[in-house]
Amino acid sequence: MEKKNSLRIKELLAQQEARPDVLVLGWVRTRRDSKGGFSFLEVNDGSCLKNLQIVVDHQLESFKESDKKLTTGCCVRVRGHLEKSQGKGQAMEVQATEVHVYGPADPEKYPLQKKFHSLEYLREISHLRPRTNTIGAVMRVRHRLSYAIHRFFNQRGFVYLQTPIITTSDCEGAGEMFQVTTLDLAKPPKVDGKIDYKQDFFGQRTGLTVSGQLEGEVYAMALSLIYTFGPTFRAENSNTSRHLAEFWMVEPEMAFYDLDDNMDLAEEFIHFLFKDVLDHCQEDLEFFNTRIDKKLLETLSQVVDHRFERIPYSEAIHLLEKSSENFVYSVEWGCNLQAEHERYLVEKVFKKPLMIYNYPESIKPFYMKTNEDGETVRAMDVLLPRLGEIIGGSQREDDYETLMQRIQAKELNPDEYWWYLDLRRFGSAPHSGFGLGFERLVQFVTGVENIRDVIPFPRTPKHAGF
Amino acid sequence: MEKKNSLRIKELLAQQEARPDVLVLGWVRTRRDSKGGFSFLEVNDGSCLKNLQIVVDHQLESFKESDKKLTTGCCVRVRGHLEKSQGKGQAMEVQATEVHVYGPADPEKYPLQKKFHSLEYLREISHLRPRTNTIGAVMRVRHRLSYAIHRFFNQRGFVYLQTPIITTSDCEGAGEMFQVTTLDLAKPPKVDGKIDYKQDFFGQRTGLTVSGQLEGEVYAMALSLIYTFGPTFRAENSNTSRHLAEFWMVEPEMAFYDLDDNMDLAEEFIHFLFKDVLDHCQEDLEFFNTRIDKKLLETLSQVVDHRFERIPYSEAIHLLEKSSENFVYSVEWGCNLQAEHERYLVEKVFKKPLMIYNYPESIKPFYMKTNEDGETVRAMDVLLPRLGEIIGGSQREDDYETLMQRIQAKELNPDEYWWYLDLRRFGSAPHSGFGLGFERLVQFVTGVENIRDVIPFPRTPKHAGF
Repeated sequence: MEKKNSLRIKELLAQQEARPDVLVLGWVRTRRDSKGGFSFLEVNDGSCLKNLQIVVDHQLESFKESDKKLTTGCCVRVRGHLEKSQGKGQAMEVQATEVHVYGPADPEKYPLQKKFHSLEYLREISHLRPRTNTIGAVMRVRHRLSYAIHRFFNQRGFVYLQTPIITTSDCEGAGEMFQVTTLDLAKPPKVDGKIDYKQDFFGQRTGLTVSGQLEGEVYAMALSLIYTFGPTFRAENSNTSRHLAEFWMVEPEMAFYDLDDNMDLAEEFIHFLFKDVLDHCQEDLEFFNTRIDKKLLETLSQVVDHRFERIPYSEAIHLLEKSSENFVYSVEWGCNLQAEHERYLVEKVFKKPLMIYNYPESIKPFYMKTNEDGETVRAMDVLLPRLGEIIGGSQREDDYETLMQRIQAKELNPDEYWWYLDLRRFGSAPHSGFGLGFERLVQFVTGVENIRDVIPFPRTPKHAGF
Repeated sequence: MEKKNSLRIKELLAQQEARPDVLVLGWVRTRRDSKGGFSFLEVNDGSCLKNLQIVVDHQLESFKESDKKLTTGCCVRVRGHLEKSQGKGQAMEVQATEVHVYGPADPEKYPLQKKFHSLEYLREISHLRPRTNTIGAVMRVRHRLSYAIHRFFNQRGFVYLQTPIITTSDCEGAGEMFQVTTLDLAKPPKVDGKIDYKQDFFGQRTGLTVSGQLEGEVYAMALSLIYTFGPTFRAENSNTSRHLAEFWMVEPEMAFYDLDDNMDLAEEFIHFLFKDVLDHCQEDLEFFNTRIDKKLLETLSQVVDHRFERIPYSEAIHLLEKSSENFVYSVEWGCNLQAEHERYLVEKVFKKPLMIYNYPESIKPFYMKTNEDGETVRAMDVLLPRLGEIIGGSQREDDYETLMQRIQAKELNPDEYWWYLDLRRFGSAPHSGFGLGFERLVQFVTGVENIRDVIPFPRTPKHAGF
């Protein structure tokens, strides 16, 4: 296409000087007509939150042709002069010399008219919602966070590892896996009354991964430092603002890292990401700070400016037991911490990010390294104000015999973990890793309340549209 | 862990001067004992291809303790002095002052002894193969290519979009999708003899995505420039060296790009990636050049140094028809080009990368934009010497009526594409995009013959282990 002097709106708005001939490509957000014979179009191309104002003289030949099609949602190509604006609210504007409408948007039918739309309603039109300020801003922040994740690990010599999505192993042993099959559900092949998985595509029963950790450990035992960043799945019937059936996880795994090293890396990681997004997404974050949460920028800066507090689980229990707070769930050593407990510790006791470590063995998965006390494992959680848990990790059990005992004690089948056990038979090393739920990170950074609004096309029970 | 003065082996080998106290963490690849009472350990930590030589005096107390465990595959921590090496083959080496074995590797049982292992054999031990030179080098190159992809698009203002993995839409309409379900296959719920998908997790039949393109177009119609980089799936019973059931794809989608712009971007993209990997992975590429393909570096440089040739499909057919080559598959206008045809054009006629565009409508999917001749569509393929097709793309049909006709003509159900059609009802824009199979890119750049050896854990018919 002829794109001479085409600049994105973000660049046009940043110009300091007038430019005689520019090309603007984007979508009309609003149109306002003046009595003096001009139309003012607010045009957006997704490069930034702000619109570019286009002033169209009704005397233009091309205006007369496009007049009726120039409505909210239409796609336009505009040639004109970029000039300093005399109006309020913008520094630069474009005086159009030619206007062309690529695709109109019938005002009688286009669902995104200029008025308030609830985020709930927008989910029903997930194919149009990226054209709104909120979802556009979320996706730009989401992009920047993704990029910052790759930069962080690349700078530190980590190798990005794409672990398998279709798998036969269940990392958490929780049995909440989606099944993947090419068998005909209406008449699946059977042997002795049971499904004959030998005839399935992979010759055995397979599901969607719940975590890349176990495979990540394989590569950490060769390349030392790796990270995954990919989709993971839970077939959990949870309809909350914090659960998705399909979500993205970041899982670094490091040879020669103990639990302290692991916590150091997690803290450095969160600091890096928050600082990066504060540096690069100012306009979008200010929008969230105004529209969604007036304390957002303050909260983000607090995370960046503070070292994280670290306390053992036992101390957390102690602090909770002696508190005068009325908790719904009672507290005793051995219990899982509930959101109310975590929030109390983070927001009322320490007033900054908190890491809790050395959890009871009984409430944690089989792969975590047992402490010398025999009762606790080298697990750690990172808790942030308002959001709660954002990272969970551990040092991994690297002793063959101990790991085997843990697998058996949890009533898992050692045969399914033969290769994972092999990592402890051959060249075992102390190692650690953690997982960060990417959508929870985006939620925290944007202040958006429902996790369904920070992923392009959310998958939840009964919802897989688009 | 105590990691004072710990450097990765890549950094240690790059030191210009001796250092009195360094800490080395890695795995022993080989051990050689001298008659003079020394052991020479070759240690690797995955940071680079080369090993670091450790010289261990048998008089060391810590050697006496670890002697028997110091065999191929064991994991070690070594303290010592970094010195310029007197021996051949390395610039720097470490004189050990203390050696500790974290995890031994019983020589009777460890499958990766120092000898030649075929890549076929290594696939059976996919949990140990990253410890080999070849797979380690492949994964470092794979990492660098991933990172270069993100850098390329971020620099150009593209937003990284994570499109859904679980989906109800079939982009290619080819029906080669894996099904995703939580129904009990042994006794699925039925209504009128048919599976009752209302009771499935998502309330309807779902599968694994074959492409993120359609959802990518949604976001291109709002943010203008987006790209996806994620896993895609084909339940295709192909046992070839170029097919995987699970593979990663990169799919940029651009508003206001026609087919020429699309080809420009594809060429710039390939140039960028190849140059980046030549700049950053020299050691690993030289290894492949020596061990796998003596012409590898030459071929990569040729791609970087040449503009790509561009010819319409009709001309390609003309060139093939007038050729005196004996093709297995005969050629006539309207046929699909076979690998033999593509290789002939790339390697014998043009001797450089080639783009073929404007393919017959009848052999291409419904979403490609129809040319004015009514017979061809604005499709393009990028063909590279030796590998063949690495990129396929098109300008997309942006006219509602034409798209609807194409959907009906291909006997697809328009109801399933309601939201995709909506993009043409509201603010439609000319737009284009392409897809690059990431594993094929890694294959090309490393020269590795079988695609199963360029992905950490390959998924193919009857294989989903690890």
